[in-house]
Amino acid sequence: MFLILESATMNILLVYAHPEPKSLNGSLKDFSVKHLEDAGHTVQVSDLYAMNWKASLDADDSTDRQARPPGMRFDPSLDSKRAFENGLQSKDIALEQDKLRWADAVILQFPLWWFSMPAILKGWVERVYAFGFAYGVGEHSDARWGDRYGEGTLAGKRAMLVVTTGGWESHYSARGINGPIDDILFPIQHGILYYPGFDVLPPFVIYRTGRTDEARFAKIRDALGQRLDDLWTTAPIPFRPQNAGAYHIPELTLRPDVAPDVAGFAAHTA
Amino acid sequence: MFLILESATMNILLVYAHPEPKSLNGSLKDFSVKHLEDAGHTVQVSDLYAMNWKASLDADDSTDRQARPPGMRFDPSLDSKRAFENGLQSKDIALEQDKLRWADAVILQFPLWWFSMPAILKGWVERVYAFGFAYGVGEHSDARWGDRYGEGTLAGKRAMLVVTTGGWESHYSARGINGPIDDILFPIQHGILYYPGFDVLPPFVIYRTGRTDEARFAKIRDALGQRLDDLWTTAPIPFRPQNAGAYHIPELTLRPDVAPDVAGFAAHTA
Repeated sequence: MFLILESATMNILLVYAHPEPKSLNGSLKDFSVKHLEDAGHTVQVSDLYAMNWKASLDADDSTDRQARPPGMRFDPSLDSKRAFENGLQSKDIALEQDKLRWADAVILQFPLWWFSMPAILKGWVERVYAFGFAYGVGEHSDARWGDRYGEGTLAGKRAMLVVTTGGWESHYSARGINGPIDDILFPIQHGILYYPGFDVLPPFVIYRTGRTDEARFAKIRDALGQRLDDLWTTAPIPFRPQNAGAYHIPELTLRPDVAPDVAGFAAHTA
Repeated sequence: MFLILESATMNILLVYAHPEPKSLNGSLKDFSVKHLEDAGHTVQVSDLYAMNWKASLDADDSTDRQARPPGMRFDPSLDSKRAFENGLQSKDIALEQDKLRWADAVILQFPLWWFSMPAILKGWVERVYAFGFAYGVGEHSDARWGDRYGEGTLAGKRAMLVVTTGGWESHYSARGINGPIDDILFPIQHGILYYPGFDVLPPFVIYRTGRTDEARFAKIRDALGQRLDDLWTTAPIPFRPQNAGAYHIPELTLRPDVAPDVAGFAAHTA
């Protein structure tokens, strides 16, 4: 058993969104790749700015765009479904889906811009998360509402955010003016990562990045290295699975006996 | 007084993000423009997909990009500041800022994709919200932490979201699986709209848009028309201003006597 663990190599996809390689984000991305590779893992990086990633979802995301009758109505969901089912997806989208299938763990690394991910990364989610791949998966019945929130294409894989903010940690505390960081990240961690099945690890957040000297950088780097070492052992955030009894279906509200006095995002974590 | 109100014409900017003109969103956008113009107001539309809006913030957002030494580090904040102060912003950015200055009210209309705005609209925010325009405004002292959250360049103007979702209303209720819609929209309403000074009106949200027949569309249209008629009289969401005494500065945590038992997003609404 010791030997198996010792030699276990994992596949890790790092999706990275910062325009400047010589930034704090760039340095941490380079560090993560080397740290994981030194531990024997295989790493792929989707460096969205370097790839000149197309951010805006539109009708050009299907390869048969030219063959479609002019004036035909574009439906973001149904066109995604048709393209996914028929091998008509734009190549950049299909390649990213392949990377997600390949990965044992996925890290999304980005600066928090206006309290969410940069547009280029949001556009990666919108385009790569096709109908039939990340949503619209599984059957709907009285007992199940599709394979999502704990089930789905990416179930069994782990995901983690690495996020930098200019603001102070206190600004993102329970009573801080920006709102608690866990709540700001909930739509991403629960709505984007847990939704198609990922086990989501607690985020690694670096605050007040305007004040990062060499000594502080070394500390951040070491802490991040530890989180990467613990990628397979850290307990995921205990989000509640949709189809395991906690929710009424199809209303998808929590049953009265589950966290009876709690409302809001917090109610969906056990 | 009656005559003044009767003849008051306002300037309204509608920032709209949907790729298909013949969608529910497209129809509602067309309706809103006509409804507001029929009431005597002046409307400008930033139809981001039709404009082929550049979504990704990068070094090309300054017009002197070519003149900069190769290898010079790009800093998203400092480069935005320099471009804004020196008239070096990309023309598309400066034009949108002019529209914001011109507007008495701004409507952001979009489908909720993965629990936030579409990437193309997020990229509008990131690029148009320059340092010195939407953030980095005002002085920092023991009593003030810049002109933001209730103060700033856009103070005195009103803003409202018009949002469509595929999911059901119950899925976005207090104990619904997606989280309450007010919390999902908080990073936008508080973090993007209230931050540079807007008074933010309650959002107009249309759920379960996959089931919109003619009769339902007529109801939605009428309800939206009413909200547009009430644009100047609807009470804004009572977010707490940053510099009026509710927060410790510079920690920016709520003082103990303000909403003493509340944490999270809800604590920032009076």
